[in-house]
Amino acid sequence: FPKTEVLFFPDETVACKAYFTDDYGCKNPNCRFSHEENSLSKLFTYLMSARTSIEICVFVITCSDLAELLIKSHKKGVVVRVVTDNEQVDVPGSQIWKLRKAGIPVRIDNSSFFMHHKFAIIDQEHLINGSFNWTQNAITGNQENILITNNENIVLPFISEFEKLWLKFDPN
Amino acid sequence: FPKTEVLFFPDETVACKAYFTDDYGCKNPNCRFSHEENSLSKLFTYLMSARTSIEICVFVITCSDLAELLIKSHKKGVVVRVVTDNEQVDVPGSQIWKLRKAGIPVRIDNSSFFMHHKFAIIDQEHLINGSFNWTQNAITGNQENILITNNENIVLPFISEFEKLWLKFDPN
Ligand SMILES: [Zn+2]
Ligand SMILES: [Zn+2]
Repeated sequence: FPKTEVLFFPDETVACKAYFTDDYGCKNPNCRFSHEENSLSKLFTYLMSARTSIEICVFVITCSDLAELLIKSHKKGVVVRVVTDNEQVDVPGSQIWKLRKAGIPVRIDNSSFFMHHKFAIIDQEHLINGSFNWTQNAITGNQENILITNNENIVLPFISEFEKLWLKFDPN
Repeated sequence: FPKTEVLFFPDETVACKAYFTDDYGCKNPNCRFSHEENSLSKLFTYLMSARTSIEICVFVITCSDLAELLIKSHKKGVVVRVVTDNEQVDVPGSQIWKLRKAGIPVRIDNSSFFMHHKFAIIDQEHLINGSFNWTQNAITGNQENILITNNENIVLPFISEFEKLWLKFDPN
């Protein structure tokens, strides 16, 4: 993996999740999604590179493709944890209940303020961070950015922030 | 300046703009703002370090302290340019008209999608980027992050992105 990579959105097309993440690729001869590398396909690849853990701290998660990759990782034995915002849990298309049903623990900010982060940590090594919420509009509509880095000076503070919020939003 | 620095919000108190940015500091003996360094005071300091240029590409700008620092820089001869989102130009407290009145050029995304970036570039050298919109809630309420870096592999793509959007949103 590169030490740092910057991705911008919108992508012109939607990356094919099967092509970039399934062991046997895309089997649909009439697939309407993109088989060319783009920002979303790179995000897919980074997420699927996780071997041990994924921590997610994202304001809105409505993109089913990204949620399904988390579930796939969880089923492979990767420890997945999610922190999100209460104002966004029940928006149309929210993936939070699907994640919980699959057994992924999700903790929720219950304040009137926003848990506004949009970051993920892969294997305690790579940070994915930027303006990008995990929504369909962020992929193909909005101007958005994601920075991916394994610079410890950047990654370690985000690991601490995740653990702080994980405890803060413990419902017990 | 450090090569990279990560700031988290919310701050517990609001940094005193005068104390951290005025030549003679804060003259108010009853000042109710904070004179201790925190995330916002560091953001103030980075912004005021600009000698030649500040490019801003931020979804929402409602924080008057931050807008006033841009105007102060503009008056000192720093070239300030702003890109923002049309859905946010007229929200309560929007600082866009104040910036334009002061002579700072502002270009506005006129699509139904969001110009959702939240970054600034100082002297073509330092990038400020994260989840942080320039609002009061982002300072004292929300969970937010800002990454500051002078890593060229990160800064240069953001400079290109700014120039791309600057042309894209040219009204002429
Ligand atoms: Zn396909
Ligand atoms: Zn003061």
